Amino acid sequence: MAIVLGPNRYGKAEIRVVRVERDGVVHRIKDLNVSVSLSGAMDEVHLTGDNAAVLTTDTQKNTVFAFAKKYGIGEIEDFGLLLARHFVDSQPTIHHARVEIREYTWDRISGPHSFIRDGGEIRTALVRSDGSDGPESVVSGLTDLVLLNSTGSEFHGFAEDEYTTLAPTDDRILATAVTAWWRHRGTAASWGESYRAARAGLLAGFAETHSLSLQQTLYEMGRRVLDGQPGLCEVRMSMPNKHHFLVDLEPFGMDNDNEVYFAADRPYGLIEGSVLTDDAPPVPPHWH
Amino acid sequence: MAIVLGPNRYGKAEIRVVRVERDGVVHRIKDLNVSVSLSGAMDEVHLTGDNAAVLTTDTQKNTVFAFAKKYGIGEIEDFGLLLARHFVDSQPTIHHARVEIREYTWDRISGPHSFIRDGGEIRTALVRSDGSDGPESVVSGLTDLVLLNSTGSEFHGFAEDEYTTLAPTDDRILATAVTAWWRHRGTAASWGESYRAARAGLLAGFAETHSLSLQQTLYEMGRRVLDGQPGLCEVRMSMPNKHHFLVDLEPFGMDNDNEVYFAADRPYGLIEGSVLTDDAPPVPPHWH
Amino acid sequence: MAIVLGPNRYGKAEIRVVRVERDGVVHRIKDLNVSVSLSGAMDEVHLTGDNAAVLTTDTQKNTVFAFAKKYGIGEIEDFGLLLARHFVDSQPTIHHARVEIREYTWDRISGPHSFIRDGGEIRTALVRSDGSDGPESVVSGLTDLVLLNSTGSEFHGFAEDEYTTLAPTDDRILATAVTAWWRHRGTAASWGESYRAARAGLLAGFAETHSLSLQQTLYEMGRRVLDGQPGLCEVRMSMPNKHHFLVDLEPFGMDNDNEVYFAADRPYGLIEGSVLTDDAPPVPPHWH
Amino acid sequence: MAIVLGPNRYGKAEIRVVRVERDGVVHRIKDLNVSVSLSGAMDEVHLTGDNAAVLTTDTQKNTVFAFAKKYGIGEIEDFGLLLARHFVDSQPTIHHARVEIREYTWDRISGPHSFIRDGGEIRTALVRSDGSDGPESVVSGLTDLVLLNSTGSEFHGFAEDEYTTLAPTDDRILATAVTAWWRHRGTAASWGESYRAARAGLLAGFAETHSLSLQQTLYEMGRRVLDGQPGLCEVRMSMPNKHHFLVDLEPFGMDNDNEVYFAADRPYGLIEGSVLTDDAPPVPPHWH
Repeated sequence: MAIVLGPNRYGKAEIRVVRVERDGVVHRIKDLNVSVSLSGAMDEVHLTGDNAAVLTTDTQKNTVFAFAKKYGIGEIEDFGLLLARHFVDSQPTIHHARVEIREYTWDRISGPHSFIRDGGEIRTALVRSDGSDGPESVVSGLTDLVLLNSTGSEFHGFAEDEYTTLAPTDDRILATAVTAWWRHRGTAASWGESYRAARAGLLAGFAETHSLSLQQTLYEMGRRVLDGQPGLCEVRMSMPNKHHFLVDLEPFGMDNDNEVYFAADRPYGLIEGSVLTDDAPPVPPHWH
Repeated sequence: MAIVLGPNRYGKAEIRVVRVERDGVVHRIKDLNVSVSLSGAMDEVHLTGDNAAVLTTDTQKNTVFAFAKKYGIGEIEDFGLLLARHFVDSQPTIHHARVEIREYTWDRISGPHSFIRDGGEIRTALVRSDGSDGPESVVSGLTDLVLLNSTGSEFHGFAEDEYTTLAPTDDRILATAVTAWWRHRGTAASWGESYRAARAGLLAGFAETHSLSLQQTLYEMGRRVLDGQPGLCEVRMSMPNKHHFLVDLEPFGMDNDNEVYFAADRPYGLIEGSVLTDDAPPVPPHWH
Repeated sequence: MAIVLGPNRYGKAEIRVVRVERDGVVHRIKDLNVSVSLSGAMDEVHLTGDNAAVLTTDTQKNTVFAFAKKYGIGEIEDFGLLLARHFVDSQPTIHHARVEIREYTWDRISGPHSFIRDGGEIRTALVRSDGSDGPESVVSGLTDLVLLNSTGSEFHGFAEDEYTTLAPTDDRILATAVTAWWRHRGTAASWGESYRAARAGLLAGFAETHSLSLQQTLYEMGRRVLDGQPGLCEVRMSMPNKHHFLVDLEPFGMDNDNEVYFAADRPYGLIEGSVLTDDAPPVPPHWH
Repeated sequence: MAIVLGPNRYGKAEIRVVRVERDGVVHRIKDLNVSVSLSGAMDEVHLTGDNAAVLTTDTQKNTVFAFAKKYGIGEIEDFGLLLARHFVDSQPTIHHARVEIREYTWDRISGPHSFIRDGGEIRTALVRSDGSDGPESVVSGLTDLVLLNSTGSEFHGFAEDEYTTLAPTDDRILATAVTAWWRHRGTAASWGESYRAARAGLLAGFAETHSLSLQQTLYEMGRRVLDGQPGLCEVRMSMPNKHHFLVDLEPFGMDNDNEVYFAADRPYGLIEGSVLTDDAPPVPPHWH
């Protein structure tokens, strides 16, 4: 029985790059958080500390800034592909690159160069590449999309055992913070359009489903993202059930007809699931 | 030399109450985080543990929920006044009440009862009352209003000493996260209108000031909040200077004409100041 | 091309249970954060909202509290196994249970029932079970173990490309916050002893390795955890490189002989890797 | 009625400086988070953007690093005084300096230069100076000291009104996270000794008080800090009541004899108070 090196990766995480682009006096800004992760022929650095195979994380950071200048930042999926391919192609020892990007959005206020941070959900992209002629994958997504239905949600008919005390309900608040990832079949798409359609599908699935369980809502949200977007093959979602408990006002001589709720922090339900097309190609195992 | 009890207060912090109001099938929601703090004749509880003077923090919490039902939640300033007066009037031992409220805003999505959390700034109110016939104060505000000017900001002509290395600049990014509090002269106002006007003043002051320092911008923002709102007498602001450093791209043979920035976390500048009218009444000393 | 349900799971996350145990007047406390995740025959709840297969997350929470009473809380691995087996065995629809536990440790202060929270690393366990007669897995670990070597770390000989500006160094600060997981071969062990040995191996590997790269240190830490613990088959580690940058004091007429550092927040390096025995059994695919 | 500038201050916040000191091969490290805040004749920078009076926050940061080299870092109170006096004396426009320091402690692991972060409470200091010949103040403290008594705490005999539902109890868990500040009479003291004595007083006051209310415990903790330290004149404390609710196990046929608790997050009680000597000098008003 010998001790050996297993799967590994390394990179620079959370590179905060802001790019200003000018159209005359009118400015546009792109505000990203970029994390790079590389892997490949990295046995020596682990076993002997020989760094010859290592493109340093400092260089990765420099590359992100230099590429922001050289190519500008358009859609984050394209920027991620550009970076991922570059890293794999630049060193023979680097076989796989993973670039994860979070994009913070800003809205314009009065004037051509003043902005207010849109504090809502964050757009995300996760790009993997084994080089421009190897397998590649683009996953788009969003996180921190906080949604609430104040009615139209029931929960009953569940399994019961000796530890069950929950009362069934035919009217509750359903609230969640959506993290979603949708996988593209290829590496070229109208990323912005696809993003807006996917986001609209999530919202519609949430708002328009009369919900008997958060799982049902999740499935319907995923279905609507895939529906009508043939370029997508899978949606993964992670959705906490942000409990809103009805406050017992009876001791004060009041009823509570679904009017006053306590918004709890912990514990919370956590519902995770994937919706996919039956022809979705598998993700390469080294990408998990 | 004796050891004695000094100033003290107690209360329930961060009561998360959500109130649903119905207009037929159309719902409105109010989502608050309420913190109560009471003081008065509290020597005994500190010195001997006799709780006879103490309205428990649990009761304070119950009261917030019960009042949300009984009176509904309109403007947070009114809800705060209602609570503060109640607490002072309800027990002879409670002389001062302080109610701080944070309001999270939600936007409507499709349908009459579906909402998306607006993740931007949070509206706030801070109400103090010595009872309905004692001195009272209402302060309104906001926090987490994140703003950025991509040009129109200079910084030069500053004092220099032996530890100064900063180069003067005539074009930089100016970014901040505004926390602002504005003090009302009275306890009755069109709170919502006043809030919208104050917020507009902050935005205009930030966007329209060609800035030679963040202090100058802060002062102008405060001035615009007061200007045209005779019901206000003071604005206090706390504004971090969220540094965006120009990346040195010269090693890669590139210039950087204010295009690529690194958004730094720490350390950051912190600018705090007050703008007031020359007839602003002082805040009672026990309220600091 | 049809749209179908993919992998999914659900459960109650972050159940904060505190258990007091008495030995006469002397108390012991266990303070846990338990997250449960279940999966199995859950198609109907996603597709139609039929909850008959669902053991509610509320029941899961109740079970954690009830088991804390019924069985007490000893080693978190045993408590996790007890819960995981129970959930799988209790409903025919539940085929897999995953229980993740974080344990906060407290030290005794003067007296038999007074404690101070030890704010350092958190002990963790991750238990998976397909039922008491199915495959099972126990992984133990820790997180937030923050370590620093103030010398004994070099970094040079790395690959260079056109974006490389980093200077090689033969003396730097090496600092990290270790998250580590070690996988046991079986489901019975002296968990506490094994934990102490694994933790000691991590510390010794970090402190005693003259480091040419963080990867080398990581590998050596993993190797020492496995070494002498035949009951273990794999260690996974995630270690940010918490950069400490030497401050340039030359403008002030001072040298800086590795004395004054700026501790940076972002970006940071992130090194992740696994060290395993060559006979380590694979983890079942549905457990990823 | 004119609009005028009110109180203001500015500075660099959260300067993360790490200082390595060598005693032969044995290293010691000091790890600080320093925040500077200056005020004085700052009208012009607010009103016209003239920065002539402004010692930049960048220079403040440089000064912290340079002083760490020049003077080393001993007790944080001394380091704060050194910085505060320097800032006031260096520019005629700067009349008041406030330096707040948080110190993260590290314990030694095996070997002369390897350390583990002690994740418990953080030692703090808050120094104010109007210059070396002006009024000065040193306040020492700690934060994040998390304490728990598993018995020896009662709560009953409190005021009741129509919103009171809390049941009195003669045995509950009392848990809190202490933030405390103690004010020194002068600017020279054995800071380290004083710190250890104050901390011991807080711990003893918490552990040895049979508590009828958290206020009583707070007062006793403060009293013990002052007692026997004639160099101190005031202690201020802020202590959340971290509620641990007894879980109702009756539905599962179990009693719960103070054994199983749910540790809640929000809302929480918040108890704040000051204990002082009757000859404590007042703090100058511009220092609030």
